[in-house]
Amino acid sequence: MKAALLGYGTVGKGADAVLKGSGVEVSRILARRPRPELGERLTLDMSDVLGDPDISVVAECIGGYEPAHGFLRASLEAGKSVVSSNKQMIARYLRELVSLARERGLSIAFSAAVGGGIPWLVNLVRTAGADRITGLGGVMNGTTNFILNAMQGGGGDFADALAEAQRLGFAEADPSADIDGIDVRAKISISADLAFDVFLDPETVPVLGIRHITAADVANFRELGLVCRLIGRADRTDSGAAVYAEPMLFGAGSAEQSLPGAMNLISLEAERAGRMSFSGPGAGMGPTGSSVALDILDISRGRSAFDAISCQNVIENDTDGVLHRYYARGFSKLPFEAESRTGDAVITGPVSVSAMHAAVSAALEAGDRPFAASLAGR
Amino acid sequence: MKAALLGYGTVGKGADAVLKGSGVEVSRILARRPRPELGERLTLDMSDVLGDPDISVVAECIGGYEPAHGFLRASLEAGKSVVSSNKQMIARYLRELVSLARERGLSIAFSAAVGGGIPWLVNLVRTAGADRITGLGGVMNGTTNFILNAMQGGGGDFADALAEAQRLGFAEADPSADIDGIDVRAKISISADLAFDVFLDPETVPVLGIRHITAADVANFRELGLVCRLIGRADRTDSGAAVYAEPMLFGAGSAEQSLPGAMNLISLEAERAGRMSFSGPGAGMGPTGSSVALDILDISRGRSAFDAISCQNVIENDTDGVLHRYYARGFSKLPFEAESRTGDAVITGPVSVSAMHAAVSAALEAGDRPFAASLAGR
Repeated sequence: MKAALLGYGTVGKGADAVLKGSGVEVSRILARRPRPELGERLTLDMSDVLGDPDISVVAECIGGYEPAHGFLRASLEAGKSVVSSNKQMIARYLRELVSLARERGLSIAFSAAVGGGIPWLVNLVRTAGADRITGLGGVMNGTTNFILNAMQGGGGDFADALAEAQRLGFAEADPSADIDGIDVRAKISISADLAFDVFLDPETVPVLGIRHITAADVANFRELGLVCRLIGRADRTDSGAAVYAEPMLFGAGSAEQSLPGAMNLISLEAERAGRMSFSGPGAGMGPTGSSVALDILDISRGRSAFDAISCQNVIENDTDGVLHRYYARGFSKLPFEAESRTGDAVITGPVSVSAMHAAVSAALEAGDRPFAASLAGR
Repeated sequence: MKAALLGYGTVGKGADAVLKGSGVEVSRILARRPRPELGERLTLDMSDVLGDPDISVVAECIGGYEPAHGFLRASLEAGKSVVSSNKQMIARYLRELVSLARERGLSIAFSAAVGGGIPWLVNLVRTAGADRITGLGGVMNGTTNFILNAMQGGGGDFADALAEAQRLGFAEADPSADIDGIDVRAKISISADLAFDVFLDPETVPVLGIRHITAADVANFRELGLVCRLIGRADRTDSGAAVYAEPMLFGAGSAEQSLPGAMNLISLEAERAGRMSFSGPGAGMGPTGSSVALDILDISRGRSAFDAISCQNVIENDTDGVLHRYYARGFSKLPFEAESRTGDAVITGPVSVSAMHAAVSAALEAGDRPFAASLAGR
């Protein structure tokens, strides 16, 4: 079987290496600039991919909305199954692309979009095929896990930890998508879509990031025996789902507290199967490239778990009913009562996710630099 | 599609419940005694299953070697794909049954044999399909994890913790298979077979259990900041594999140390994908029944990951090259030098797994009640 790769960055290169000798031939690679090392496989023109009847799977590792989205649409319309590692694009266009694939009897898979090398989405879909998933979530962003571990371990401030992450290649030059939770928002949105076989507009997922966390916050957490993680969370509700992303504080004895480096840890809760967790490297050439390659191999063998999804039922996101106690600091006016105080921060009573996220937005608009994190299980 | 269940104990009942409304009809259930609640589906005669051309998958949840093994052979010979939750039987007959399935173009799957509800084996096989697995292992037995947690938490002795596990249904009346590591031996043997696509005689896997652990041992571990787990481990070697099961001591910050209750936690290391871990309930009607049901559903959809295995290459097990420091107590004559002492126990220098297991056997023969546990990562 022949496949094409769109994009030859970290992920594309990784997938190409894994597929060598696998039985799937990467016969075309679309890049933006000449790459002599790719020889005859290189093309700068997407029509070379679309017009090649021997190519049955197209794997997109470009990132961004366009032209990635248009390329996948065109590939499906040309009768080719598609694979993607592009979380932002998949989160936005999942419903449309799955519908197009189903109409044509083609496959679409995107394991690498969430969890890097961890087989999270395939197992989520497989479990959902014989069980009722009630909730899911966890640490889905390696960059922020690295930064939070560095702050927890070294006692330094956010800027130092971010600079260290950038120096070691764990954070990009523009780290906004990671530290503001935009990356997690796409990942939890896709995960919710597959767990509940629905579609949710990712823009409706409320997000708090870690941009304003300080060394003093981390010292407070240490005093409380807690460790901060940026998490995504989705719960099934009567009307649809409650999906959000925010910093959360985990206590001793939890797997989240001891999660090292840039690792991811994602769990699902199912009515019959119970709670299962998956952890591993959430990014990197080897892991993410492997995920893309495995999706291509599954499709080539007619064995893709993603073939079970439909995701046509559009649902609303409603986080009014999810209540947490929150650690909150840096609000010139916090509209919730404090149950206790730690340094210059407060611990609130139970507050809804929607109310706390609204309070953070209001504080930001008022010029504050607020930081809020929920307390896991409380 | 129609399927038959052999056995209607915890696992069979669980699978039956999950398959209701799934598209797969459980049309026959073989039991040893009349069960009026099963109505027309019940049969006491295996030939009713073998002679029914509408049944395309037979799932065995009986346990024990025979008649389970004979029933699966006969099912494959009758042109039916097979599923099993039976670790001891699969560990012994894996090569023969896979060979028979391949000859006939049928599927064989046995997710529930290792990890209960955790999708461990399917992910192990899927990863092995595009990567080189170098090692794997972890906590594969919930009963002993429960006992070790109870001892660690309550400070009681082994007999008390075992009685508590039996009272709560986490241990059987005859707990030998669990506490002597025979259960883990089958599970790590099957896991190694799939990871390296080979076959290894499970009887060649050296095992140390936890029968002789004492409250004093656990107090020593606490002093050292360690927690004991019974683990299975398999590493790829130049000549084949090094596979063993033994108690291992884990330090703070490891996911193994904080693994609660009767949970399982199993990891794999692959050259490209890195290290991934899977955790969840390793037993129980819901989880294990779900695993059997998912195997049946995967086969009904032509999507079974197990279709990739061959396991025909018989390899030798050799643990001479695996060195650990060991905690050792209760040996009237220990043939290794002590690097340090804790209470009446010693910590040895690096000793091979084969040498330590031989020393424990010799001590048992001499009438000692020895306990040995390796130190993770040391």
